[in-house]
Amino acid sequence: MALIVQKFGGTSVGDIEKIKHVATIAKAAHDAGNKVVVVVSAMAGETNKLVDFCSALMDPPDPREYDMVVSTGEQVTIGLLAMALKVMGVEAVSLLGSQVPIRTDDVHIKARIQKIEGGKIRRNLKANRIVIIPGFQGINARGDVTTLGRGGSDTSAVAVAAALKADVCEIYTDVEGIFTADPNVVIDARKISRISYDEMLEMASQGAKVLQIRSVEFAKKYNVPLHVRSTFTGAEGTWVTKEDEEMENVVVSGVTCDKNEAKISILRVPDKPGIAAKIFGPIAEANINVDMIIQNISIDGFTDLTFTVTRTDLTQALEIVRRVAEKIGAKDVLTEEKVAKVAVIGTGMRSHSGIASKMFKALAKEGINIMMISTSEIKVSCIIERKYSELAVRVLHDAFDLGTETV
Amino acid sequence: MALIVQKFGGTSVGDIEKIKHVATIAKAAHDAGNKVVVVVSAMAGETNKLVDFCSALMDPPDPREYDMVVSTGEQVTIGLLAMALKVMGVEAVSLLGSQVPIRTDDVHIKARIQKIEGGKIRRNLKANRIVIIPGFQGINARGDVTTLGRGGSDTSAVAVAAALKADVCEIYTDVEGIFTADPNVVIDARKISRISYDEMLEMASQGAKVLQIRSVEFAKKYNVPLHVRSTFTGAEGTWVTKEDEEMENVVVSGVTCDKNEAKISILRVPDKPGIAAKIFGPIAEANINVDMIIQNISIDGFTDLTFTVTRTDLTQALEIVRRVAEKIGAKDVLTEEKVAKVAVIGTGMRSHSGIASKMFKALAKEGINIMMISTSEIKVSCIIERKYSELAVRVLHDAFDLGTETV
Repeated sequence: MALIVQKFGGTSVGDIEKIKHVATIAKAAHDAGNKVVVVVSAMAGETNKLVDFCSALMDPPDPREYDMVVSTGEQVTIGLLAMALKVMGVEAVSLLGSQVPIRTDDVHIKARIQKIEGGKIRRNLKANRIVIIPGFQGINARGDVTTLGRGGSDTSAVAVAAALKADVCEIYTDVEGIFTADPNVVIDARKISRISYDEMLEMASQGAKVLQIRSVEFAKKYNVPLHVRSTFTGAEGTWVTKEDEEMENVVVSGVTCDKNEAKISILRVPDKPGIAAKIFGPIAEANINVDMIIQNISIDGFTDLTFTVTRTDLTQALEIVRRVAEKIGAKDVLTEEKVAKVAVIGTGMRSHSGIASKMFKALAKEGINIMMISTSEIKVSCIIERKYSELAVRVLHDAFDLGTETV
Repeated sequence: MALIVQKFGGTSVGDIEKIKHVATIAKAAHDAGNKVVVVVSAMAGETNKLVDFCSALMDPPDPREYDMVVSTGEQVTIGLLAMALKVMGVEAVSLLGSQVPIRTDDVHIKARIQKIEGGKIRRNLKANRIVIIPGFQGINARGDVTTLGRGGSDTSAVAVAAALKADVCEIYTDVEGIFTADPNVVIDARKISRISYDEMLEMASQGAKVLQIRSVEFAKKYNVPLHVRSTFTGAEGTWVTKEDEEMENVVVSGVTCDKNEAKISILRVPDKPGIAAKIFGPIAEANINVDMIIQNISIDGFTDLTFTVTRTDLTQALEIVRRVAEKIGAKDVLTEEKVAKVAVIGTGMRSHSGIASKMFKALAKEGINIMMISTSEIKVSCIIERKYSELAVRVLHDAFDLGTETV
């Protein structure tokens, strides 16, 4: 008998029939003798509708009132799912974020969970009930409804699992798990059966569609095993857990590609101490995430600085950079939007050398030029021309033998 | 400076533009120096959509989970209205039923308000904010969301007004007030400027479309002046208040007609003590409201018993009555669906005689047969054939000179 937290996203509860299907999954786990907590999102489309209502009245919307409005989507789903289960003869009860309670900080719209009190959930589990909790919502110290930001339901689920010391947090989704590469690009991409939290975080660009990054960080911090699996097939999916020996033997777990990158170069920056802070300070203040940063060697006291941001942030970042560049006396600012980032990821890299050079060779063989390189302990990523994205992924998937059934 | 509670129904907040319009009404009252509390329903259609979701999963739905789901409609509106006001530069804050709190009993789906704690509302009013509260919802002693039953928003508004000792509870609606008769039937029907709680209760069949009856009972009990007025014209509407001298001078305030009646007759009932209880006990237990009851004089130890119920309850009532009739040895059970109830209502009847006979004469003059008669201190009502409904209303409206501008 285990304690299982199951999380279902908006497409999994998109209509009445789908909610019934979710109920059968939760019931099956319950019937097998497990204690089951279900965390659900709003029905697909509902949150967008509510957000549109808010924007039509006030843009940007008042954060407190926005949370009051958009948190209702999940509230509808929990009540409906409880009814679907009751009809099947399973005792079930829905609990709002304020009833659990799920305590968050005071930052409306993107609140962070501070503490989940497990007592009420545990009492209901003990009474043999399936407990249903809305994702995405919490309550602050003043008793106001808060929301965790889009995709926050994953984080809710992991946080609930951590608070209850659950045996597993199952993330149900419309794909079968995490793959060695995007199956739409690589025909023999393989479902990964086990992967470490760190690898999952590095596979963000692929995983973000499936798992919210914050939830993986949370799972790693509290050591909550995640099981990413399909709502529709019932097959085993991908387990995301802490590293073990077996994982260390896998040199490369997967290949990812992120097309949502843009490159900014500042030419002939006077190379003085503090210059990087002058440039990246204002960018950070504008809440823009910088991914890779490369600074070339200094010649004549000048250097070139290149970095990447997500494409959606490009316009705003550029404005800031141009202002700063003028102030510090840089020569010019260039941008390149038609780029992509490909990466090979694997825990085993720590103990294997030659991964980077193998990657560079494979790309070179196809005539793909590498514009920037960045490495971590378990990842090598390269910025390339965007038009080569799919080709690069296929080439790397082959080069590291990911399609064959290596363990 | 007054303390005003304003209530807006679903059609008044049916879309974003209408919510903006409601905000201008609340703002105008606030700008005029009043303290303003606004109680709102769900956007038109939303509650039905949510109820349909529930019914599709579980019929009848689980009461607690039903309340969890359907209470979200109002929650959306309060947040949106708060934003609409903030955009106009007015400080506003929404408070959930659980935040006020609006404490109810434990009967989900048709909870009754037990206590409204005014402290949080008052503190916000003092800070010069417009306070926005969802109609229809409350919280029980266990901290679970409850709802008051359809149309409960009127009751919420009046209860809030009573708790705050507000100067007036304004009920905004899509008509201009309460009329001497249905303006669709009587061309010269006149808007009533002042009416007593008791008259309003008797005018239920007309008023129910505008005011929930329970809210009027509540207003009477706590002496909350109601002002029924149009969301769209801004004109003075109808004040519903406690009786005063002026009202006593008005013999007949209005004529109503209720077509939602059906008649059941039990023939040759053995006339023994306790027989009425045997018949009406099971009907009451089935939660069926009986309106008029007439028992004819007893002949040979047998009597005929006739009563009316709402048409929607007819089938169920008939089942019960047939079972009981057989048990007590009555001869037969007859029903008549094609009936209507017309009534003349007025506080002044208490001190004026001859109203009933004037009514009977007016109906007789048009050849309208009276099937049943019932009277109260301030009302005479007759069951007639339904096809004469409109004619009867017009005839009575004329007979009592309601169309002319009598005060």
